[in-house]
Amino acid sequence: MVKVNENYLKLKAGYLFPEISKRVKLHAEKINSQEIIKLGIGDVTEPLPNACIEAMSLALNEMSSSKGFRGYGPEQGYIWLREKIIQNEFIDRGCRISPEEIFVSDGSKCDSSNILDILGNDNLIAVTDPVYPVYVDSNVMTGRTGSPLTEGGYEGLTYIPINESNDFKPQIPSKKVDIIYLCFPNNPTGATISKIELKKWVDYANNNNSLIFFDAAYEAFIQDNTLPHSIYEIEGAENCAIEFRSFSKNAGFTGVRCAYTVIPKSLKGITLNNETIDLWSLWNRRQSTKFNGVSYIVQRGAEAVYTMQGKAQVKKLIDFYMNNAEIMRTELQRTGFKVFGGLNAPYVWIKVPDKMTSWDFFDYLLDKANVVGTPGSGFGNAGEGYFRLSAFNSLTNVSNAMKRISNI
Amino acid sequence: MVKVNENYLKLKAGYLFPEISKRVKLHAEKINSQEIIKLGIGDVTEPLPNACIEAMSLALNEMSSSKGFRGYGPEQGYIWLREKIIQNEFIDRGCRISPEEIFVSDGSKCDSSNILDILGNDNLIAVTDPVYPVYVDSNVMTGRTGSPLTEGGYEGLTYIPINESNDFKPQIPSKKVDIIYLCFPNNPTGATISKIELKKWVDYANNNNSLIFFDAAYEAFIQDNTLPHSIYEIEGAENCAIEFRSFSKNAGFTGVRCAYTVIPKSLKGITLNNETIDLWSLWNRRQSTKFNGVSYIVQRGAEAVYTMQGKAQVKKLIDFYMNNAEIMRTELQRTGFKVFGGLNAPYVWIKVPDKMTSWDFFDYLLDKANVVGTPGSGFGNAGEGYFRLSAFNSLTNVSNAMKRISNI
Repeated sequence: MVKVNENYLKLKAGYLFPEISKRVKLHAEKINSQEIIKLGIGDVTEPLPNACIEAMSLALNEMSSSKGFRGYGPEQGYIWLREKIIQNEFIDRGCRISPEEIFVSDGSKCDSSNILDILGNDNLIAVTDPVYPVYVDSNVMTGRTGSPLTEGGYEGLTYIPINESNDFKPQIPSKKVDIIYLCFPNNPTGATISKIELKKWVDYANNNNSLIFFDAAYEAFIQDNTLPHSIYEIEGAENCAIEFRSFSKNAGFTGVRCAYTVIPKSLKGITLNNETIDLWSLWNRRQSTKFNGVSYIVQRGAEAVYTMQGKAQVKKLIDFYMNNAEIMRTELQRTGFKVFGGLNAPYVWIKVPDKMTSWDFFDYLLDKANVVGTPGSGFGNAGEGYFRLSAFNSLTNVSNAMKRISNI
Repeated sequence: MVKVNENYLKLKAGYLFPEISKRVKLHAEKINSQEIIKLGIGDVTEPLPNACIEAMSLALNEMSSSKGFRGYGPEQGYIWLREKIIQNEFIDRGCRISPEEIFVSDGSKCDSSNILDILGNDNLIAVTDPVYPVYVDSNVMTGRTGSPLTEGGYEGLTYIPINESNDFKPQIPSKKVDIIYLCFPNNPTGATISKIELKKWVDYANNNNSLIFFDAAYEAFIQDNTLPHSIYEIEGAENCAIEFRSFSKNAGFTGVRCAYTVIPKSLKGITLNNETIDLWSLWNRRQSTKFNGVSYIVQRGAEAVYTMQGKAQVKKLIDFYMNNAEIMRTELQRTGFKVFGGLNAPYVWIKVPDKMTSWDFFDYLLDKANVVGTPGSGFGNAGEGYFRLSAFNSLTNVSNAMKRISNI
């Protein structure tokens, strides 16, 4: 019989979000499901920017004529989109990234897990704790960890705690690691990283020949203009970092699907023969072979994010969600919760009441207030005792959810 | 320094299609590039069916309102699309496949390479020769082969020749293999497989506990109604086969991106502890973790393929390309070429003139007729001496290309 990938057997039951869905579904059978307010999954709720809709309409129109029709596009993404990205996201911030270093894809979830394809299995991996579960699970699936530990987590992974005691700043590990996942503004804690703190990581990586995976999916929510939007704002990062970006959270593309990954041509890896090889070429080969590019229609939608209208409409969306976050912060603090994040990120990270676990609090909030959040422990051991609430919802829903929570 | 995936170093230079692009680009610099007719890459050229355009317009409209907006969809695809697929592709043909067994994706190229994620590295793999290069390269990349052989191909892979001497029918291997890739109607040869021949493979797989990857991307081009469109038309296939399907070639979605994979729940694999485990669960876990579903807009477009209008429009597209194929067959035969395929597939497979290699003939045709085809050797050793021409182009281009070839 065909042998399966044994590493899948190590995975702990249920990826976080399916587990949440299951519990919500069970609860919804007992009550009027309309009553449930979902602040769980980080999924946007507001309509797409008009500029994107219009651009996609035009693209659809093209696809309906012989002259305008487009078949397979470049696996790396259309050059006009890659150029717009460079102009708008990188050049103005002083990052020396070229369009060829941008790989357009259908999602950061795919990219941040597929990236492991081009790397050896014998790299030491570090993740923060709590962390976006995909980073961990994709490492487990590809055999880069040992077995699950009884105390949580997996053997062989280095966990870097981010919590109140270190002000949610990941500390440089004492042990050398080859790959470090960093996500700022952080999912799930909503914490940010300053240029000075990020510089420490870039220096660490360059000094130790390590590679940083920098997930900047939430950069658009940054309000404090001293904070870096891209790791390439830090000198030397082009020699040690891959950055993941997405249109999901800024332009609301979670259901449209467009993201991109930056792989600087100066990034190097090493072979068993001690020869260096550039990671860009490996990823280019990977994408050319295993991927067929993003929908033309969708890429036109993404391009429109960078029109004058598009930028204004995206800003409005961000302002809208950040206003929600502000309401959440204020109300939850007023109710007596210890609240983190929510200032430069669409996530509010709260400490759950004493003697409750994160899942206890999940069930409690669902039961008493019909509000869905995400248990901190779902993001790792160090997330236990915390709870994530997302600002992605309508103003009415957010306000009502806060009222209900304060009235429990 | 970060260790790279050594298996990438085994890959032979240049994936076939990038190499073709390079040569065409060089040629285009010398002549009026408008003159070049591309019958190389299997990419459609005709506009999308109107039914799909309309459905996607409606979906875009929904996405522009709070009420109609959709964020993340199910990683497996929306149930309404999966149900339509079942009704239209499987039930009428007597296949016992359920909607849950359909996984919607952004492309068969992704699926047919990502599927290896869930399987052990120690399975013996067989491919036909010639073959779609992605099957081979994805196995190389994941360490399922040895080094490239000087005579072509890779160590450790079992190659099953399909050529004139066996009437393009793959023969059951004498050695037991764990996984067999079959593609019918075949890319690149345009050959087909009868139910009787396919039954032999299903029986072989069931008797040997092997797994068949059946690529049916070209099933819509079948004109002979005794031929199977799906492997599940063969009894027992639900216990031994995964099928890859796509909207790329029937509805012209190469630039839109939608495909699906069928994984019957009855399919089993085995662990090192000799426990059986169903492959459906592993793939479901893989997709939930590493994929975020297909664009809502695109899925609505795919759904429209199954409306009355959609079906009629797709049929018209298929008829159009098959008329091209007929012109190609007739003209090439008249010119004196030995021609295969093109009867139930959009590909015509011709024998190149004596003493020429496939690449010689590629350069010759490009130089003398400004026509681009695909060298058979790009699909494997046994493809040497053959050449693929694709029927995906306008009638004018196909007619002109044939005229030019006959006038060389």
